[in-house]
Amino acid sequence: MKQILLVPDSFKGTLTSRQVCEIMAEQLHLVFSEADITSLPVADGGEGSVEAFLAAAGGERVELPVTGPFGEPVRGFYGLLPDGETAVLEMAACAGLPLAEGRLDPERATTYGVGELILDAIRRGRRKVILGLGGSCTNDGGVGAAAALGAKFTRQDGTEFLPTGGTLQEIAALDCTPVAKALEGVELVAMCDIDNPLYGENGAAYVFAPQKGADGPMVERLDQGLRHLGQVAGRCLGRDLSQMPGAGAAGGLGFGMAAFCGARLRMGIDVVLDTLGFDKRLPSADLVFTGEGKIDFQSLRGKVVSGVCGRAKRAGVPVIAVVGQIGPGFEPMYDQGLSAVFSVNRAAQPFSESRHHARENLALAMENIARTLALRPGNV
Amino acid sequence: MKQILLVPDSFKGTLTSRQVCEIMAEQLHLVFSEADITSLPVADGGEGSVEAFLAAAGGERVELPVTGPFGEPVRGFYGLLPDGETAVLEMAACAGLPLAEGRLDPERATTYGVGELILDAIRRGRRKVILGLGGSCTNDGGVGAAAALGAKFTRQDGTEFLPTGGTLQEIAALDCTPVAKALEGVELVAMCDIDNPLYGENGAAYVFAPQKGADGPMVERLDQGLRHLGQVAGRCLGRDLSQMPGAGAAGGLGFGMAAFCGARLRMGIDVVLDTLGFDKRLPSADLVFTGEGKIDFQSLRGKVVSGVCGRAKRAGVPVIAVVGQIGPGFEPMYDQGLSAVFSVNRAAQPFSESRHHARENLALAMENIARTLALRPGNV
Repeated sequence: MKQILLVPDSFKGTLTSRQVCEIMAEQLHLVFSEADITSLPVADGGEGSVEAFLAAAGGERVELPVTGPFGEPVRGFYGLLPDGETAVLEMAACAGLPLAEGRLDPERATTYGVGELILDAIRRGRRKVILGLGGSCTNDGGVGAAAALGAKFTRQDGTEFLPTGGTLQEIAALDCTPVAKALEGVELVAMCDIDNPLYGENGAAYVFAPQKGADGPMVERLDQGLRHLGQVAGRCLGRDLSQMPGAGAAGGLGFGMAAFCGARLRMGIDVVLDTLGFDKRLPSADLVFTGEGKIDFQSLRGKVVSGVCGRAKRAGVPVIAVVGQIGPGFEPMYDQGLSAVFSVNRAAQPFSESRHHARENLALAMENIARTLALRPGNV
Repeated sequence: MKQILLVPDSFKGTLTSRQVCEIMAEQLHLVFSEADITSLPVADGGEGSVEAFLAAAGGERVELPVTGPFGEPVRGFYGLLPDGETAVLEMAACAGLPLAEGRLDPERATTYGVGELILDAIRRGRRKVILGLGGSCTNDGGVGAAAALGAKFTRQDGTEFLPTGGTLQEIAALDCTPVAKALEGVELVAMCDIDNPLYGENGAAYVFAPQKGADGPMVERLDQGLRHLGQVAGRCLGRDLSQMPGAGAAGGLGFGMAAFCGARLRMGIDVVLDTLGFDKRLPSADLVFTGEGKIDFQSLRGKVVSGVCGRAKRAGVPVIAVVGQIGPGFEPMYDQGLSAVFSVNRAAQPFSESRHHARENLALAMENIARTLALRPGNV
């Protein structure tokens, strides 16, 4: 075993993808001491995405003061990858749920800081900006971020203002010409793994606003605001992206990035694997390890394990997945590149108990997979 | 992978060792369709031991009427192995707990039928008799079995009688000469995995009689009876085996077999592996699979996985264990021949839930171990 690639997602609720990589690498080294092990922890677009990218690709972390969710200054950050081209951002850096803890209010929260982070990256000469959508405390349809990039939002009376979730209904017109100018020559990609539309019963407000502190009537008002935003944007921009899958991500930031800033929304795993040059690394790899909290029928579609398997299969490289739970319906993955899957559960224990042992359980499973791979039974 | 040996214990509470073998073989065949897979399900000495031996070695099941635990006739059975030499018996066939269900009474229950089974095997020319101790409803110190083989037990007044647990104290003298004659040229081996002495706080009555229906005062009486038996036997036979490890097995049948019948008490796994010619099969094997309900620090000493590992290590054959639970302290097994161990738990579930999925969970784990063994990463 000479070259091994580690490309795990996080184990939700227990281990970050970076921690998973560390544990996997440590155990593999015990058995394959000479192996060249490359860790590519997967960013899922939420909190920790910048850290994961930097851990995988190297690069530099930039910190700067930007506007927080309620207008106050916060210490924002993003990553500069060593290719000299790419910046990686997570919207949670300045508009994430933890920043609003104790004062959740999606009617007032803004994504303005996200636009400031993007601008800073561009000012530093970056031509490709990757933005993780995930973990937001906002519901502003991305107007805050767009405004920071130069978009103008005006009321019926012609006054310009910065709308938030609670005031989207007041927008009478909008102008994104300055945004296009600011982003000229820049490729903007948003990582987005959900396919909710901007509004409606599957939209941003109804599905995600309750966890951001909205009660029933507020959800209704937020949804109306997003619906209005979609209509105004459609009228002013000549195209309606409100039903685009992912428009409802991060309180409608998915919509705003696409409609106001020309961003492409892509599956997170594809963005990560492309950015990290996974396909170029595959031909020299002997084996790929991936993993996630749970593998099941949902894993078949665009999630980390499936993304990794698809590419590895085309390159003829085997993939072993190590997961927190093997749920029903994952079996078609065997035909899609998955060589084998193992669960980390060493005993019959409920999650409330086993979650405290995630680290040593993953280590134990990895050690024994490595030991099995190292076996050379006589007549194999 | 050409030759694979399967030598699992049962998974207590979910699968017999024979079922474990079937599932293991089925999954291995899916991946290694040409492999020669030999199933050697391990008998633990309790109920099902004869079936396990016959499944592993082949042979013939003999049925015959013998004396049941309370003197009534029951349909007893044992196995004739194809070597023409060996008979395998389980004491539970005529004195097991299920036969006494609803009328548990260790003061009255007898092992007489066990002696009848042994006699029948000898009459059929068998020179080696293996007896599984386990699952008994008796506490007679093995005097019943000895009596069936010709032993004489007499009261103070010289009258001969058949003692049971409640009347051991009446024994004034005993004569085992007829037993020695009946067993001439016969090797008698008792399978015994516990090391309790005949009497005392760790003895047969105190430790095991409560689950056979004895209340506190009865336990005390039973213990006094066993103590008396030990003393009489010591005086009449010239040696005191009451403190021998295993004497307290099966209500003192361990003691009786050794003291009255000259049996050797051996660890079950050693008896099984010797009888099945495991050591002779090892050199041509590429890999051994074993397993048990739980592997932990207790597994280090004389249990199935440790027995299998020790022999396989000497032969240089790798061993993979598949278990219901990986408990603390098993790690020294890696140095004692264990190549790798996997748990069958596919999710974080309590045993009350997972026990209903034992079959498919074991199958899933085996399939993925086989898939991993079949991998041939480029530069291994």
